Amino acid sequence: MKIDIKKIEEIVGENNYSDNIADLYVYSSDASVHQAMPAVIVKPKTIEEVQKIVCYANKKKIPVTPRGAGSGTSGHTVPIDGGIVLDLKQMNRILEIRPEDMLVRVEPGVVDDDLNRALNQYGLFYPPAPASSRIATIGGEIAANASGVRSVKYGATRDYVLGMKVVLADGSLVNLGSNTRVHSAGYQLERLIVGSEGTLGIVVEATMRITPLPKFRCLAVANFNSLKDAGNTISDIITSGSQPSMLELMDKVGIIAVNKAMNLGLPEVGAIILFEADGNVKEAVDYEMKKMKGICEKHGGSGIEMSYDAAERKRLFSGRKKLFAALSRYKEGIICTDLADDMGVPNSKIAQTAEKIHEIAERNNVIMAVYGHCGSGVIHTKIMFDTTKKSQWKDAERVIEELYDYVHSVGGVTSAEHGIGLSKAPAWKKARSDILPMMKAIKKALDPNNILNPHKLMDAPDDWVKATNLRYNVRS
Amino acid sequence: MKIDIKKIEEIVGENNYSDNIADLYVYSSDASVHQAMPAVIVKPKTIEEVQKIVCYANKKKIPVTPRGAGSGTSGHTVPIDGGIVLDLKQMNRILEIRPEDMLVRVEPGVVDDDLNRALNQYGLFYPPAPASSRIATIGGEIAANASGVRSVKYGATRDYVLGMKVVLADGSLVNLGSNTRVHSAGYQLERLIVGSEGTLGIVVEATMRITPLPKFRCLAVANFNSLKDAGNTISDIITSGSQPSMLELMDKVGIIAVNKAMNLGLPEVGAIILFEADGNVKEAVDYEMKKMKGICEKHGGSGIEMSYDAAERKRLFSGRKKLFAALSRYKEGIICTDLADDMGVPNSKIAQTAEKIHEIAERNNVIMAVYGHCGSGVIHTKIMFDTTKKSQWKDAERVIEELYDYVHSVGGVTSAEHGIGLSKAPAWKKARSDILPMMKAIKKALDPNNILNPHKLMDAPDDWVKATNLRYNVRS
Repeated sequence: MKIDIKKIEEIVGENNYSDNIADLYVYSSDASVHQAMPAVIVKPKTIEEVQKIVCYANKKKIPVTPRGAGSGTSGHTVPIDGGIVLDLKQMNRILEIRPEDMLVRVEPGVVDDDLNRALNQYGLFYPPAPASSRIATIGGEIAANASGVRSVKYGATRDYVLGMKVVLADGSLVNLGSNTRVHSAGYQLERLIVGSEGTLGIVVEATMRITPLPKFRCLAVANFNSLKDAGNTISDIITSGSQPSMLELMDKVGIIAVNKAMNLGLPEVGAIILFEADGNVKEAVDYEMKKMKGICEKHGGSGIEMSYDAAERKRLFSGRKKLFAALSRYKEGIICTDLADDMGVPNSKIAQTAEKIHEIAERNNVIMAVYGHCGSGVIHTKIMFDTTKKSQWKDAERVIEELYDYVHSVGGVTSAEHGIGLSKAPAWKKARSDILPMMKAIKKALDPNNILNPHKLMDAPDDWVKATNLRYNVRS
Repeated sequence: MKIDIKKIEEIVGENNYSDNIADLYVYSSDASVHQAMPAVIVKPKTIEEVQKIVCYANKKKIPVTPRGAGSGTSGHTVPIDGGIVLDLKQMNRILEIRPEDMLVRVEPGVVDDDLNRALNQYGLFYPPAPASSRIATIGGEIAANASGVRSVKYGATRDYVLGMKVVLADGSLVNLGSNTRVHSAGYQLERLIVGSEGTLGIVVEATMRITPLPKFRCLAVANFNSLKDAGNTISDIITSGSQPSMLELMDKVGIIAVNKAMNLGLPEVGAIILFEADGNVKEAVDYEMKKMKGICEKHGGSGIEMSYDAAERKRLFSGRKKLFAALSRYKEGIICTDLADDMGVPNSKIAQTAEKIHEIAERNNVIMAVYGHCGSGVIHTKIMFDTTKKSQWKDAERVIEELYDYVHSVGGVTSAEHGIGLSKAPAWKKARSDILPMMKAIKKALDPNNILNPHKLMDAPDDWVKATNLRYNVRS
């Protein structure tokens, strides 16, 4: 697997690749615990360049790992087999905004917030937005089927992909999907690509459905004595037929962390819920907010603050927005890791899963935060521990196993919106062994030389600790 | 390919199969123009029976064509290679309604209207509903990615499938997807199955997302002088950011037909639009209705009738509801055929496509009705002609070719919600030649013996006229 650097330079030009060790190091990890060195970073600017690179790699059987912002938490973009990391951030043009067809055509490196800033001028928006929307690219969001805070009303990336251009493993370009709201014209291949984590093809252009910005948004915060009360409130809101445009949970660990990091002075109660409704008519938003407020109060929710004002909403949301970054400030000497950081459970299982997470954490000597887009069943966590100690990594291993066994036992999934990658693969493969042959058959049919992001998902190693280096200094 | 009838009887019992010629004849056609005789009809009652039948067929390389109501319009369930027709209508149990998780688990033979009657008791509904919802099964709707009158707000079947159990070509059972609103846990295989027309696996159970019934629905009808005005109104309503829950078009041919068939006394204007809004707060529904009414009036819409009342809404919708059946009454001596009966175009191309359809029809001596769920870009047509005459079939062939060339030239798709099957395959294959190898590779990977609904979609014959018998008496 010797890479011909001259060939690479010929394709993308001398300024658009690097095999400098410092650059390779930067690209050796993402937001996960994993680290592995690529042989070369390639930064294509056109579809043709992607085709030529992939075509060359396929002939020489060189692994190609596509990468957007590198904000993935499960190791999707860590090049476990070395080879080429394909950085798509330079393909970042918004090609076309078509309000008359309610769609937008973008290159994969377009950043989510940039897209929304452009759309806002037309009174439109693109709903799926992970917490990392400031840096996350549309290509990366497609790879992981990202959903974000408004998924409870608006759904996930898979619900917005209309069509896409994809470079397949042999370097050929296919044009999947349609320019229309619905289609029944051949396999829904564009939806197969969503969530495939770069293993089936390289998305080089995407046509996404967009939707009108609502005239009114009202956001509220409510405090709860216990995580159980907060979780049950969320379940009840959904079952009641309420239609929140956001329904977020944040536990005490999260509250303490944002207070420490940002000095917010939030009451350090059992849990906080954020709920939002949106619409074009204030009476309708009022109705939804009043109904949700009533359900909060029924479960002991207190200190409810509510606002339509954009600046006030930003303030109310600030703790949740910065939670991820703040968690590392929770306690001196412990590090916040992305391991079992994302799961999905049926709506009725939110409270019990949230409580179970704390119980498992305590029993295994780690700290875990529980938060996320619980209105759509998305639970996020972080496992926080002393990463310098081997014994604490063993603790983390036990936590992950116990946690996912529990999530699967209540009908949940290993990942709701972050993807499987490397970290979650062992737990996921154990739970979903029946679908692995089907996935492997499709992978082999489309990528017979196994060059596209190899050894991820169904082909990932069975031991996530040994899968790659850990990007932590484990001393004792 | 000799089928061992004893073996079939052993699997499903003596009352659940037939090779009686009268039965075979019934199952030799659907709502399309095609006809081909199966060797045996098998009516399984359990997943295990489906597995055993498919396993046997795979060993003997016998084609298996799954079938729901047989209401498909493109020949999906016509057994072009003979073999087994698998009638899934006996697997019609609603297994579980879980309002607490906003999902329902059903067998594939459950009829859409039956499901909605059951859900309505909980204040819930399943939005995708084709005009044939009185007989259409959920399995069939999954096969075609059906969408229906409310797709403009609620989307298509693909947006509601959470998970499914599928029997693959080797008889193995896989459990795809999740019980959660979103997931990023492996390939979105459940969405690959949607719209695959029975070529990749047999859906034996489906978990579908459901949603609260709105408290208010308001429906209106508006009359327009021309099809162009009506089409432009629809485009403008969507571009304006209005959120109709229904936005339907019906042309003069349709109006005349329903007047003849049902004596409705509708004004025989250029076109009629039906628009609906729904919601939990009347002020919000009023707002949307008023906004849409204003856009109608701007384009010369007149005689606008509007009602919240269920019985009145039923009356206003009655013409559209019965349109399909009524069209055969349009003119003595001509027959209404399902050929180029379904297409999707971008929102901005509705008026010009509708006009083009009439122009092509006139120039080629056939009559065509234009109607459909135009708010989501779905245009339906029927080609009406004297099916006893060979020359008229030639006319129909020209119409289809011209029409789909036009639809593809404006960025549209060959089918929006009816599927490709046999009738639409030549036009679709011509337009989408780039994706055929990818589809064939997936098909071969999952069904190496090509037993599941063979020779449909990408593998369909290039000449739809010669693909099968035509189920018409062509005399001269």
